[in-house]
Amino acid sequence: MITQLEIKLKYQSEEKLNYNISSVMHGILMGHIDRAYGERMHEDGLKPFVQEVCNIKEDEFIWRICTMTEEAKIQIIEPLMKMDQFYMKHRELRLKVCERNLKEISYDTLIENYYFEEQPRNITIKFCSPTAFKSQGNYIFMPTVRLIFQSLIHKYDTFSSGTMVGSEETLEHIERYVMITRYHLRSVNFSLEGVRIPAFVGTITMRVKGPQQLVNLIKMLAVFGQYSAVGIKTALGMGRIQIGV
Amino acid sequence: MITQLEIKLKYQSEEKLNYNISSVMHGILMGHIDRAYGERMHEDGLKPFVQEVCNIKEDEFIWRICTMTEEAKIQIIEPLMKMDQFYMKHRELRLKVCERNLKEISYDTLIENYYFEEQPRNITIKFCSPTAFKSQGNYIFMPTVRLIFQSLIHKYDTFSSGTMVGSEETLEHIERYVMITRYHLRSVNFSLEGVRIPAFVGTITMRVKGPQQLVNLIKMLAVFGQYSAVGIKTALGMGRIQIGV
Repeated sequence: MITQLEIKLKYQSEEKLNYNISSVMHGILMGHIDRAYGERMHEDGLKPFVQEVCNIKEDEFIWRICTMTEEAKIQIIEPLMKMDQFYMKHRELRLKVCERNLKEISYDTLIENYYFEEQPRNITIKFCSPTAFKSQGNYIFMPTVRLIFQSLIHKYDTFSSGTMVGSEETLEHIERYVMITRYHLRSVNFSLEGVRIPAFVGTITMRVKGPQQLVNLIKMLAVFGQYSAVGIKTALGMGRIQIGV
Repeated sequence: MITQLEIKLKYQSEEKLNYNISSVMHGILMGHIDRAYGERMHEDGLKPFVQEVCNIKEDEFIWRICTMTEEAKIQIIEPLMKMDQFYMKHRELRLKVCERNLKEISYDTLIENYYFEEQPRNITIKFCSPTAFKSQGNYIFMPTVRLIFQSLIHKYDTFSSGTMVGSEETLEHIERYVMITRYHLRSVNFSLEGVRIPAFVGTITMRVKGPQQLVNLIKMLAVFGQYSAVGIKTALGMGRIQIGV
């Protein structure tokens, strides 16, 4: 089960907050979960959650947390559901919960609604927050079809139980049949503890040739990506995507 | 010698002209040059001139023609210099010459001013008109360092007499030491006789590591590219670049 919690937080501050607080919110989140679980996640590498800050206004913003497994929901979402406020230490800022929105979608539903239904061959992905990939130890800040779907397949196969979609052959198929047909992209830096990670934002449109099954798989993975995010450091707010925009 | 002729042309039309007239102007240009020379150019493949239309206003535009060799100057620029007006048949439009601007720069000057002078390591290239490359028979509408400099080196070595800058080794050096550090690019279509060629416009910034000599070579080729344009169909108006913008 994938679980998405959106919390609307009110704050009072002289200056408007900005997107760089995503990593601060990550710290706050880690402060509310069981330490043993947090350490285990740290060791595991691929984290079963993503979180980010969006819709930042003068006095409120949305904190969005997605968990990709049942255990992560229990360990991460449930403690947060009980909180009525959070505290941002370094700014001495109280964040008051004024709305919560919990949404759940099962991996089976994803498969039924997208993989087993005929999907259109064109698909647009908007990279809303700074996105980057790592390949052979280097940061890559320009998307390729392979890097996007390698990341999504890896996440999907790690967290969904029961179904596996990926193999080297699947990726080769995707590389052969999926083409970027339009794009508008620009590089940005994602600031993280004084380090600037080269990344990009923008939009790409892809066209899927080949069998309809592949079209459906691509669509399903892209929908999944709206929850899982894509690429590196997604637990810190990178890699959020929206489709069909 | 590289020769650049800018002709300001006045016109009277109900509707403003647009960039798609570049290929019409190519037709007009071909109508004013010796047929045998035109046919030879056609057979040769890499054409020794580029032309494009820019600064289009309500009643005037700039027609820019660059020739890359002495012969092309004599065959292309000189006949155009004698003309006081041109005629755009399919629109029944008279184009009156109201200004001419002729500029010449020798390959030796390029080498002296750029290759033999210390150049900065960051360089920005703006792709002003739709740009595309061809690689293994496919159109490529996203720039890479290799494709840009492969194209520029090929043009430079074909048209400059006396100096050669390129080899597979040079290209490998360039690929290893030149990185795109920032970009803002989007795909566009270049319309040509009913065919739409996938292309891009926008800006990239590169940083050159490695020996200073390589930095200088990159800068010299980029300056050369402002005259020669880069990639495919540059005689029809594609691939115009500006540096340091």
